[in-house]
Amino acid sequence: MSTIAFIGLGIMGSPMAVHLVKAGHDVAGYNRSPEKTKPLVEAGGRAAASVADAVRGAEVVALMLPDSPDVREVLTGQDGVFAGAAPGTLIIDFSTIRPDVTRELADEAARRGLRYLDAPVSGGEAGARNAALSIMVGGESADFEAARPVFEAVGKTVVHVGPSGSGQTVKAANQLIVAANIEALAEAVVFLRAYGVDLEAALEVLGGGLAGSAVLTQKRDKMLHDSFEPGFRIALHHKDMGIVTSAAREAGVVLPLGALVAQLVAAANASGDGALDHSALLRGVQRLSGQTRP
Amino acid sequence: MSTIAFIGLGIMGSPMAVHLVKAGHDVAGYNRSPEKTKPLVEAGGRAAASVADAVRGAEVVALMLPDSPDVREVLTGQDGVFAGAAPGTLIIDFSTIRPDVTRELADEAARRGLRYLDAPVSGGEAGARNAALSIMVGGESADFEAARPVFEAVGKTVVHVGPSGSGQTVKAANQLIVAANIEALAEAVVFLRAYGVDLEAALEVLGGGLAGSAVLTQKRDKMLHDSFEPGFRIALHHKDMGIVTSAAREAGVVLPLGALVAQLVAAANASGDGALDHSALLRGVQRLSGQTRP
Amino acid sequence: MSTIAFIGLGIMGSPMAVHLVKAGHDVAGYNRSPEKTKPLVEAGGRAAASVADAVRGAEVVALMLPDSPDVREVLTGQDGVFAGAAPGTLIIDFSTIRPDVTRELADEAARRGLRYLDAPVSGGEAGARNAALSIMVGGESADFEAARPVFEAVGKTVVHVGPSGSGQTVKAANQLIVAANIEALAEAVVFLRAYGVDLEAALEVLGGGLAGSAVLTQKRDKMLHDSFEPGFRIALHHKDMGIVTSAAREAGVVLPLGALVAQLVAAANASGDGALDHSALLRGVQRLSGQTRP
Amino acid sequence: MSTIAFIGLGIMGSPMAVHLVKAGHDVAGYNRSPEKTKPLVEAGGRAAASVADAVRGAEVVALMLPDSPDVREVLTGQDGVFAGAAPGTLIIDFSTIRPDVTRELADEAARRGLRYLDAPVSGGEAGARNAALSIMVGGESADFEAARPVFEAVGKTVVHVGPSGSGQTVKAANQLIVAANIEALAEAVVFLRAYGVDLEAALEVLGGGLAGSAVLTQKRDKMLHDSFEPGFRIALHHKDMGIVTSAAREAGVVLPLGALVAQLVAAANASGDGALDHSALLRGVQRLSGQTRP
Repeated sequence: MSTIAFIGLGIMGSPMAVHLVKAGHDVAGYNRSPEKTKPLVEAGGRAAASVADAVRGAEVVALMLPDSPDVREVLTGQDGVFAGAAPGTLIIDFSTIRPDVTRELADEAARRGLRYLDAPVSGGEAGARNAALSIMVGGESADFEAARPVFEAVGKTVVHVGPSGSGQTVKAANQLIVAANIEALAEAVVFLRAYGVDLEAALEVLGGGLAGSAVLTQKRDKMLHDSFEPGFRIALHHKDMGIVTSAAREAGVVLPLGALVAQLVAAANASGDGALDHSALLRGVQRLSGQTRP
Repeated sequence: MSTIAFIGLGIMGSPMAVHLVKAGHDVAGYNRSPEKTKPLVEAGGRAAASVADAVRGAEVVALMLPDSPDVREVLTGQDGVFAGAAPGTLIIDFSTIRPDVTRELADEAARRGLRYLDAPVSGGEAGARNAALSIMVGGESADFEAARPVFEAVGKTVVHVGPSGSGQTVKAANQLIVAANIEALAEAVVFLRAYGVDLEAALEVLGGGLAGSAVLTQKRDKMLHDSFEPGFRIALHHKDMGIVTSAAREAGVVLPLGALVAQLVAAANASGDGALDHSALLRGVQRLSGQTRP
Repeated sequence: MSTIAFIGLGIMGSPMAVHLVKAGHDVAGYNRSPEKTKPLVEAGGRAAASVADAVRGAEVVALMLPDSPDVREVLTGQDGVFAGAAPGTLIIDFSTIRPDVTRELADEAARRGLRYLDAPVSGGEAGARNAALSIMVGGESADFEAARPVFEAVGKTVVHVGPSGSGQTVKAANQLIVAANIEALAEAVVFLRAYGVDLEAALEVLGGGLAGSAVLTQKRDKMLHDSFEPGFRIALHHKDMGIVTSAAREAGVVLPLGALVAQLVAAANASGDGALDHSALLRGVQRLSGQTRP
Repeated sequence: MSTIAFIGLGIMGSPMAVHLVKAGHDVAGYNRSPEKTKPLVEAGGRAAASVADAVRGAEVVALMLPDSPDVREVLTGQDGVFAGAAPGTLIIDFSTIRPDVTRELADEAARRGLRYLDAPVSGGEAGARNAALSIMVGGESADFEAARPVFEAVGKTVVHVGPSGSGQTVKAANQLIVAANIEALAEAVVFLRAYGVDLEAALEVLGGGLAGSAVLTQKRDKMLHDSFEPGFRIALHHKDMGIVTSAAREAGVVLPLGALVAQLVAAANASGDGALDHSALLRGVQRLSGQTRP
């Protein structure tokens, strides 16, 4: 049983913090909009008044924040985590941010005698609610082992993938594959509709063979019915495509498909579909093909 | 129990014809290289000396041939299927060819009082050997029902997807999705290796989430070990990408991802990898990123 | 002075035929809509009632037709050019069609004892009116020399680029470069506008350096004022991108940029901009970037 | 006549500083490798021992440096330009760097009472030697007018394109267009060679029409002879494509062509061609098409 500070109680962080309470941990949660602490408090956790307040006395500090600048601010800001955490504190960043920022923050943490794991997740809101997240963890093996009870309270597939930043790198690769698989399926759907094929039957047979994928299984109904409530928002996937393309550039890796998909996600975002589920890439293919749908 | 002519006893056609014999049908097989009839004869089928010989007396004529011109020649050539088949004969074309050629041949068949289904398959050599193919069928519903015993002898997922040509259209979409999913995975692999991530662990966690796919499951070992014995050859996938991109063009459908992937498959083929498994798209990403591997 | 049959008196063919009359040739023109022969007749030429009528007695048969099937029909159809032309007649095809169709028709012409040059043009309607076309000629050198007086009556830059089909190949390359240069300029324009740069000043300085091009000079005003009366229609450029991408595929040449540009031209065509000038590719970039303009 | 500090005397900066001396200015030059000051001193300028030394007493401080971090360091570092320049000093940054960094540095300069123009150039080494550069200038109009004598000593086409950062934005657009025009020409060259066309003749006729461009004129010989001594290096163009693609992302502008070309430039760089002229994008198309050339 650990004392855990949990910073960032949004759509993902809130159920994760609740699961940690249920697993027997002592959790102090902080969120910029304080009303978001309500589910945590109802589950038996504590509401902290500030980051510093949450961090005081914590053995583990967990973060689930939107983007690189947020994580940087919470860690390095005045009254932030680095300023308040006791030596040896284990920081676990569940956020999806830039791998280079992760490495920089992990180095700074090490200089201050703190331990740091990057642990971005996939599985979305449902995964968070059901404690069924996939977690890709970068950092020291010993820290990974120490964090196991935390990970197992919120995730199902938990894998240590390498040194610091590796979790973010794998998450970036995850977002690249997912966006490409969605776009490929979207192009196939527009193609099949243009030829008047029975789309439901076609998706059934496609799903049974080498074209089958989690994307096809989970997104087919949204595409069949042009119904794109999120789910995972295009605006966030657009941010993530920026991470993977710039990380590839820094590493001298060439991603022709990834770069094009990043532009198609950017187009969806620029066209006003940022708040829709990422399966709404279908709408972009429809627009390019001169089709307008409800 | 039907009398079946089976034209084209290659790597796919041969085990399919054998399964039809085992299911109790009377099968006369023809192949340009006559030694390919051996497994069929050993299983209890007959070797035909010519297309005309095979077709004589057949209720069903099945084809499994490499490309559109082959199918056209076997059907419309002198002493071909159209010339020799009795009225009412059911032609089942398992080949993957151009949808417009299929529609043209089906129209011609109808004018001659013949019945015609396009029924391309996915699942590869293993699917053919295990009678576990996915079969996407275009044509009349009544003909589809009549052909069920044949399909069930060789396939597992058998779906009627629409009128004549629809099977080929769905197969084209299948090849688009598969090539894109392979390329996306290949780019992710090169990206992850460049960052020194534990690739096996990364693929495990990727496979457990929304990035999971049949491609990841079936091709990961080939990619991990740079070992690309086919499987499905790049040269054939290159042919198929030509089918889907030109069919999209005819229908006014725009496939930005599909068109780019088609070029990357073409590059793999032009670079001498045509005889390798399509997962060797990985080698193209490695070449673009300046990496040479054994 | 030659007797010339001129088949196809559209926006390009009509002024070309008139220039041939002015250069002293005896020109019999044929067009499917017979009223199009009027300018030719007013200039001193003759109106033919049919292809056969035009071809009778002609030493040279010139064609300027929309697409491959039109040329094939006029040449090989019943009462077509091949049927009616006297042995030794020189056929000059000014149309932009598929190189492989050109080679096939040239072979057939040779078998019939006819001479054949492919001679597609660039320079557009203004080039045709001013007898200032660029002409890229494929075929035998002797035939090219024999045709010089005809070419010089309608063109300014006339170049023999190789054997039969080479003219079409060079024209295909021309269309690839032009579309890519337009799209690159269009993307630059949207980029510059987004940053509030003085666009006229920017285009001036861009035009003075390595970014300068005929496209920038001739299309800048259309792009500055979002005014896209043709010029050269997107629908035709879409046809031509189909020619160059499929010719590249046949030759095993990989065109990543060309394939993507072909999709963007296809998108412009599918989005209802087919009748606009090809500089309206700008509208596609605006749509992708979520901008709507008058 | 002004007193000018010139920081960065490389392949571009050295001849520019010399031209300023010849135009009657008093020029103190600084370069990290001090032997690079030799041509300036021989022309009558002074060699400065440090940035601070050069800046002391200067009315104008000109910079010509490789990349954003270099400019930032020279301006904001200890003993840098901002620390040493007298109020009212006019800073002219000829370097090609990120527009956002330019705006940030210009803001900082303004806070310190300094004036700042971004003035990236095009025209390459030859343009620098011949005082024939195109200069795209961002900043205040009054500062632009004040800097005219400096610009006219080194450039031919000098245009004020907007507020601070606009020069960099236009330069970024320039690099986008140039890379795309080179790639399009390169694809055309490989296509034409594959069809055995007379390439010199083809480039002549292409150059005379709408496919004509400064790229075709200036790079054709390098491409014809596979001879790629720079010129402008691929490694630098790779840096610049990073600038334009990330600036587009920040502005919400979608660049499908630009993003793909950026990957092709990245591939050339990763494949060991970074030190070659950017026309060596041709080698990338040859590699993709399975051609190896000397």
